[in-house]
Amino acid sequence: MDYSILGGKMNRGLSVLDTVKLIKGESMTKDLQDKAIILGWCIEWLQAFFLVADDIMDDSPMRRGKPAWFKNENVGMMAINDSFLIESFIYRILKLNFRSENYYIDLIELFHEVTYQTELGQMVDLITSPTSVNLDLFNLDKHHFIVKYKTSFYSFYMPVALALLLCGEKDNKKIFDISRDILVPMGVYFQVQDDYLDLYGDVKLTGKVGTDIKDNKCSWLVIKALEKCDSNQRKILDLHYGKKSDADELVVKKLYQDLDIQGVFQQYAEKTESTLRDLINKVDSSEINPEIFSSFLNKISHRQK
Amino acid sequence: MDYSILGGKMNRGLSVLDTVKLIKGESMTKDLQDKAIILGWCIEWLQAFFLVADDIMDDSPMRRGKPAWFKNENVGMMAINDSFLIESFIYRILKLNFRSENYYIDLIELFHEVTYQTELGQMVDLITSPTSVNLDLFNLDKHHFIVKYKTSFYSFYMPVALALLLCGEKDNKKIFDISRDILVPMGVYFQVQDDYLDLYGDVKLTGKVGTDIKDNKCSWLVIKALEKCDSNQRKILDLHYGKKSDADELVVKKLYQDLDIQGVFQQYAEKTESTLRDLINKVDSSEINPEIFSSFLNKISHRQK
Repeated sequence: MDYSILGGKMNRGLSVLDTVKLIKGESMTKDLQDKAIILGWCIEWLQAFFLVADDIMDDSPMRRGKPAWFKNENVGMMAINDSFLIESFIYRILKLNFRSENYYIDLIELFHEVTYQTELGQMVDLITSPTSVNLDLFNLDKHHFIVKYKTSFYSFYMPVALALLLCGEKDNKKIFDISRDILVPMGVYFQVQDDYLDLYGDVKLTGKVGTDIKDNKCSWLVIKALEKCDSNQRKILDLHYGKKSDADELVVKKLYQDLDIQGVFQQYAEKTESTLRDLINKVDSSEINPEIFSSFLNKISHRQK
Repeated sequence: MDYSILGGKMNRGLSVLDTVKLIKGESMTKDLQDKAIILGWCIEWLQAFFLVADDIMDDSPMRRGKPAWFKNENVGMMAINDSFLIESFIYRILKLNFRSENYYIDLIELFHEVTYQTELGQMVDLITSPTSVNLDLFNLDKHHFIVKYKTSFYSFYMPVALALLLCGEKDNKKIFDISRDILVPMGVYFQVQDDYLDLYGDVKLTGKVGTDIKDNKCSWLVIKALEKCDSNQRKILDLHYGKKSDADELVVKKLYQDLDIQGVFQQYAEKTESTLRDLINKVDSSEINPEIFSSFLNKISHRQK
């Protein structure tokens, strides 16, 4: 538990508490705060469940500055069952703390739903980046599906949905829909930033050297390159993308430069932020505090890490 | 789904329907039958979730006469996520079919609880049979814990508990306790038979050649051998148990013969069956039909496969 659940930034977990504070304002109670913290931890446990398993599936050596859990001596494939146990503990925590609440079943169904969505995203991600490179598999629709399902729901929509349930809004379908319609595209934007920072981020800020090109990842950058390239440049991509050597990676980087992929990203980022701000401005503040969404957006706007 | 869920004996799934029939008798309805069949399938999906993952953890080449799912080309470690999806589908099936029932939350909690118990059993099983042989780790308490948690709850208790929920007994805690107190030890007996048949079963009936000795399994047979052996025989076990060669296996088999492990099993089986029959005879038939339990016991009594 300590090894796999602690050590992250805990943005997702903390967002539950932040959102409850914005909903309740002065009427925030100690009991509500405690419950928000517990549900925040539940998202962190959900994330640990996914990450322990993802690291096995991707054969990742490291996670949060330590060896991935399954890389530890005497762990290995037992880590699969350990990931199951982490998932099971979520429902034990919920039962222990929320069984008598009228939104107990809604909490459980939300965790089931978001777990399922994340697994669907992981499935499409895995079958889109097979060991043999085939760039025909990459396109914007596929990328959008993967990041929406694999990241957005659990990282952006879920903290707010949990806060809403906690604040007695379980039957207010409309504000769940409003939240989803803003937070899911915001999560997609967050992941596109991630794809961008993988290559163009400052290592001193991001803390990691990106490997998306070498790892044949269905990154937003390669999709934009595929859209803009001519047939000769496409041949270059086919030859050098997803290869393990620095030389191949350099060829792809040079091609991105020729195609001005950085400029394409800057344009996309500006347009997306403006679209998201418009969506937030249209929120009726008598229904839900728009600051919930703008505070999320402010945290990720022009992020460098 | 077809590959991993179909192909088993479906005893667990069919037991739900059998039990509902015994509870309801003449008042069995088409609706109840349909629901019992759906819940029966849910146990089969739960089992598939476990088996897909267990085969990776044990590196098993085969399952139900076909390559284990993860051994298929283009599957590999993706099978981990596939097992997650199979689990997620259980809760989608439950939501789709039982959301409006007053026992919906009880169904979900039962699946969570039994999943957790099975994972605990798998965990202790994995850490008790490490790659390096250490017979000091084996004892009857450990064996009992493993088979109770890893097998009994989901294979024996769960079908009956699901049938009881379906038949409107969700608040009748007493009959759940009665069922658990009989079915969990019956499941342990079933697993001890499994350990016996692994070595002494007729391959023409069981359909498989056992490998428990070579695989360093915490089998009931080796535990009884450890209990009965003198210090010289213990040295023989330490030297030859859990080794991959036929010669080593033969030495262990010979030692079991010297210790009359088959006789020890026959005595255990007679005593256990008689204890279980006594438990069943004490059931107050105004509370629950004892035939539910005797029909389970009759299916496994003196089984050859």
